[in-house]
Amino acid sequence: MAEAKVLSGAGLRGQIAGQTALSTVGKEGAGLTYRGYDVRELAKDCLFEEVAYLLFYGELPTQAQLDAYLQRLQGLRDLPQALKEVLERIPADAHPMDVMRTGCSMLGTLEPEHSFEEQLDKANRLLAAFPAIMCYWYRFSHEGVRIDCVTGEADLGGHFLALLHDKKPSELHRKVMNVSLILYAEHEFNASTFTARVCASTLSDLYSCITGAIGSLRGPLHGGANEAAMEMIEKFASPQEAIDGTLAMLARKDKIMGFGHAIYSVSDPRNEVIKVWSKQLAEEVGDTVIFPVSEAIDQVMWEQKKLFPNADFYHASAYRFMGIPTKLFTPIFVCSRVTGWASHVFEQRANNRIIRPSAEYTGVEPRAVPALAQR
Amino acid sequence: MAEAKVLSGAGLRGQIAGQTALSTVGKEGAGLTYRGYDVRELAKDCLFEEVAYLLFYGELPTQAQLDAYLQRLQGLRDLPQALKEVLERIPADAHPMDVMRTGCSMLGTLEPEHSFEEQLDKANRLLAAFPAIMCYWYRFSHEGVRIDCVTGEADLGGHFLALLHDKKPSELHRKVMNVSLILYAEHEFNASTFTARVCASTLSDLYSCITGAIGSLRGPLHGGANEAAMEMIEKFASPQEAIDGTLAMLARKDKIMGFGHAIYSVSDPRNEVIKVWSKQLAEEVGDTVIFPVSEAIDQVMWEQKKLFPNADFYHASAYRFMGIPTKLFTPIFVCSRVTGWASHVFEQRANNRIIRPSAEYTGVEPRAVPALAQR
Ligand SMILES: CC(C)(COP(=O)(O)OP(=O)(O)OC[C@H]1O[C@@H](n2cnc3c(N)ncnc32)[C@H](O)[C@@H]1OP(=O)(O)O)[C@@H](O)C(=O)NCCC(=O)NCCS
Ligand SMILES: CC(C)(COP(=O)(O)OP(=O)(O)OC[C@H]1O[C@@H](n2cnc3c(N)ncnc32)[C@H](O)[C@@H]1OP(=O)(O)O)[C@@H](O)C(=O)NCCC(=O)NCCS
Repeated sequence: MAEAKVLSGAGLRGQIAGQTALSTVGKEGAGLTYRGYDVRELAKDCLFEEVAYLLFYGELPTQAQLDAYLQRLQGLRDLPQALKEVLERIPADAHPMDVMRTGCSMLGTLEPEHSFEEQLDKANRLLAAFPAIMCYWYRFSHEGVRIDCVTGEADLGGHFLALLHDKKPSELHRKVMNVSLILYAEHEFNASTFTARVCASTLSDLYSCITGAIGSLRGPLHGGANEAAMEMIEKFASPQEAIDGTLAMLARKDKIMGFGHAIYSVSDPRNEVIKVWSKQLAEEVGDTVIFPVSEAIDQVMWEQKKLFPNADFYHASAYRFMGIPTKLFTPIFVCSRVTGWASHVFEQRANNRIIRPSAEYTGVEPRAVPALAQR
Repeated sequence: MAEAKVLSGAGLRGQIAGQTALSTVGKEGAGLTYRGYDVRELAKDCLFEEVAYLLFYGELPTQAQLDAYLQRLQGLRDLPQALKEVLERIPADAHPMDVMRTGCSMLGTLEPEHSFEEQLDKANRLLAAFPAIMCYWYRFSHEGVRIDCVTGEADLGGHFLALLHDKKPSELHRKVMNVSLILYAEHEFNASTFTARVCASTLSDLYSCITGAIGSLRGPLHGGANEAAMEMIEKFASPQEAIDGTLAMLARKDKIMGFGHAIYSVSDPRNEVIKVWSKQLAEEVGDTVIFPVSEAIDQVMWEQKKLFPNADFYHASAYRFMGIPTKLFTPIFVCSRVTGWASHVFEQRANNRIIRPSAEYTGVEPRAVPALAQR
């Protein structure tokens, strides 16, 4: 399972663009490891903040280190007033990833990274602040309230749910959000992370790298897939409709969002984890449509195309069952992946050469500039 | 001259990351061509807007097309009120590239690209709006004035100078700004353009691609070099000081900003053009220090390291002679390069596969997660 494909062709597929000690994707049986640890094991036992610490500082924290780290992040959650005022000027119908991108960029003007010695401070700041950037804008633009960006929640998953729903989350929801954040934290040289590394290679600042990565994650072929999957799933009222609809989409050669992967060939190890939790949430809310519809699509995709659900597919239903608006799915991904992005920026900086590939020229031959009147 | 290096090693140097019909860098004698036209010829005869049109639409405009295009761009210069309010909230000591990045991102929330059919409209909008984004922030934060973002100037270079200096530019300044914008417009798969293409490959929107590119251009190894060059040049009060100082920096193995190039091996074809104009401006203002100091550094770099000035080096003095604050040097680059970036986004979209390279893993072997109490 979770094996790597034979990689070749366009999109730099299979070409080595640098080194990393952060993760392996599709290597030796274990589908996905963060600094040597199987993501499924991390998702079973750890708090997301332990994983963030692992990525940023190189090793899992001791209890004392974890306590101090949780405390530290809690102190970094509030937003500067100028940033709140910017978020208030972004319309309700804006794409929420545009909000994350703008919020990150704006924070960079207010609290710049003056030197690379500050990189860990700035990474922790962004990690702690993203849930508030998302929820402050969402609740101001959609509900007209100016929320308090500070909650009493110890962990980031619980903090996000409390900001969004204005109440303490259930233990099940807190647990699933924690697992979800762990699964999304890091994934080697995917397009958004690679964006961050290209940016870092010019020795630009951390905010630029993360802002750029957010822009790439926004794309429907990348992070946008969980939202697109939800929109597809909710079009179907029954498993039979889902089967017929999926077959029709495949016949039309549509891409089915939430399936396939640039690297994995047989399965995505994150899928088995989130699917179990999505099922448990379905039972909790008494769902009889969304989860069965999801499974039906899953089955058709495998039978017809040998394509398997990636991390995004069952995330869609899981988030829905927790009452998270679809438009916030990809922004949550940002709240998690900022740990992987920033860690890659640190790596790039530690051993840098500007990333500057070549292009194959397919244009016209050299020609003389005709005078304006002669064109 | 302007020949390409033998490319290899880290940073994807020499690896083909895609196709382009937009430009050649260091190919067959002509150092730099845009759609087949030698950049030196374009810089001699054309308006920057002709070059923008060439990149966006594929061919140089006729007189009628150019007139219509100039008219069109003039109508796209003003900024929405919400964007002005955001710019007013960015502090005076912010990095101006953070302003460009945030301004671009914010505009994307207000006037989103709903579908790729709008791509040319949005590219023209950004092209027309960037001078105002830069100058509105600069003059509000530094001088406390809320400028009118519309001027009567026909061309973008003149428009920018008028916004900045609040008066009609001289013909020489208008001419040099026009040449400068042409020289900076496009440069194949440099790091910021490549950032835009990676972002585009996820099928993200144009604003995300351009915002990401701005973040990469910000880095001192890339667009930031013209500002860094200026800061170095103005440290020296005489050519002799410059010679001694440059030798000392080389002995310390410092990188000298404005020299060297990832692709060119012998010279940068943009340099010979801007150097002539910088010299002419030096004569106009009666300079006896900055230009001679620049030439002294230039000479030492060639004698000692066989490194040649790239596009950025004499741009520094040229901009200085026109009274442009050093901190706006890289933002001007944005005003020009947005044409190349957007054109690359269009190309990537027209024949896309997600850009997702691989990494060489250098981390620890698989290991079991230790319980918190056992760490
Ligand atoms: C992830 C993805 C971008 C990988 O792209 P890739 O590396 O270019 O994919 P492959 O080269 O393995 O594609 C092989 C074939 O399967 C098809 N395919 C891949 N994913 C597909 C999907 N989700 N639905 C339908 N067909 C798909 C491709 O079109 C291709 O067909 P072709 O050979 O006829 O052109 C791609 O699978 C995809 O677009 N998935 C949907 C978006 C998504 O879920 N993204 C989140 C990733 S975590
Ligand atoms: C542009 C640049 C990033 C290209 O990087 P690159 O492709 O990695 O450069 P090269 O591989 O040709 O470098 C060859 C050698 O020259 C050195 N070198 C290159 N540019 C140099 C400079 N401006 N000052 C001093 N040494 C320089 C490199 O350090 C390298 O030395 P090494 O072999 O001892 O490590 C690099 O020349 C640079 O940093 N220049 C200064 C920044 C600048 O002006 N950028 C604007 C580019 S338009």
